[in-house]
Amino acid sequence: MFSGAQVSLYAMTDDFVDVILGAISALEPYRQNFRIETDDISTLLVGPPDQLFPAMRDLFLGASKRGVHCVLAATVSRGCPGEPDDPICTPIAGSNHDRPLAERIAAAVQLVEAAPKSGQIVAAQFSLYPLGSGHHMDEIYGCIEFLKKSGVFERSKNFCTKLRGDAGPVFATLSEAFLRFGAPQGHVALDLKVSANSPSKA
Amino acid sequence: MFSGAQVSLYAMTDDFVDVILGAISALEPYRQNFRIETDDISTLLVGPPDQLFPAMRDLFLGASKRGVHCVLAATVSRGCPGEPDDPICTPIAGSNHDRPLAERIAAAVQLVEAAPKSGQIVAAQFSLYPLGSGHHMDEIYGCIEFLKKSGVFERSKNFCTKLRGDAGPVFATLSEAFLRFGAPQGHVALDLKVSANSPSKA
Repeated sequence: MFSGAQVSLYAMTDDFVDVILGAISALEPYRQNFRIETDDISTLLVGPPDQLFPAMRDLFLGASKRGVHCVLAATVSRGCPGEPDDPICTPIAGSNHDRPLAERIAAAVQLVEAAPKSGQIVAAQFSLYPLGSGHHMDEIYGCIEFLKKSGVFERSKNFCTKLRGDAGPVFATLSEAFLRFGAPQGHVALDLKVSANSPSKA
Repeated sequence: MFSGAQVSLYAMTDDFVDVILGAISALEPYRQNFRIETDDISTLLVGPPDQLFPAMRDLFLGASKRGVHCVLAATVSRGCPGEPDDPICTPIAGSNHDRPLAERIAAAVQLVEAAPKSGQIVAAQFSLYPLGSGHHMDEIYGCIEFLKKSGVFERSKNFCTKLRGDAGPVFATLSEAFLRFGAPQGHVALDLKVSANSPSKA
């Protein structure tokens, strides 16, 4: 299964180049597992689906720890039929899609509760798109039930869902939503923004 | 049909609040046609599908004319079945979905060619998601054929397509891709980033 993300990092400061270059070093531990390509709009990460959100979390924390207002925006995808299979993209580890929905929700909640805290509060907004056939509204409603139990659910908005809390459980919640719902081999896309240190909100 | 966008504007400068507040005045001519709500992550625009991209273009030009590196990121949607019908969201004006694909591509190219130039060069990256049933791969391939003829096509990337050119034809191309392909009443979502004045690219 091909999986990856196009990731952009925005820092609202005159020193944005420094902030971004400094943050990129947080990707070092992931480099051996990912193919990484950068252009003027975004950085492509291609690799194991379950390492995508940890990599994005560490990249974002590398920028936000400077205290400036910054945003990570990403287009995350798995199972896109137009993309070639890539050996670097392993199947979803610990997929439990064969288990009943209630059990999978409980497992996802447990993983989020176990996520280490980072000390950085973030707000996140995302849309999850299950594409093609083989997906069921049950999966979507199951995902929403999980989000409401995640401990970081803020509210539903038009076209998206908003989370708020420590970056640890917020990125863990996003990862679970991406990995555990929808067909395990199906095409799922996720459109994400994560914001820290915004002057509009404490 | 419910249509709208969650729009975020990022300015890579210490004066980002000023840049954003200054740019928002560019939305004034659209206010009577849209419902507009802002929080710390994005601004919701709900209104006629064919005015969404002109409104975003003017908002973005309001920010980029200051010369700083800035990015507009938006989640655009029409026909979402989970959203209530809203009288402010009119049907797509001049929908020609009943015409053969080749004719619709030619009409879209013509509209892009007629788009006024703004003098601002931008790079844009987007993913188009036709959701639910009633969509056909023919529509997607037709849209790709249109993009390649738009005059602002740069390249296909993993998970997305990249455009580059004057903001006028670039936003016109995005609007045509969103409006003219996929079922006219179907659910279509578009995940967009537009960048200007990036130091990474002339």
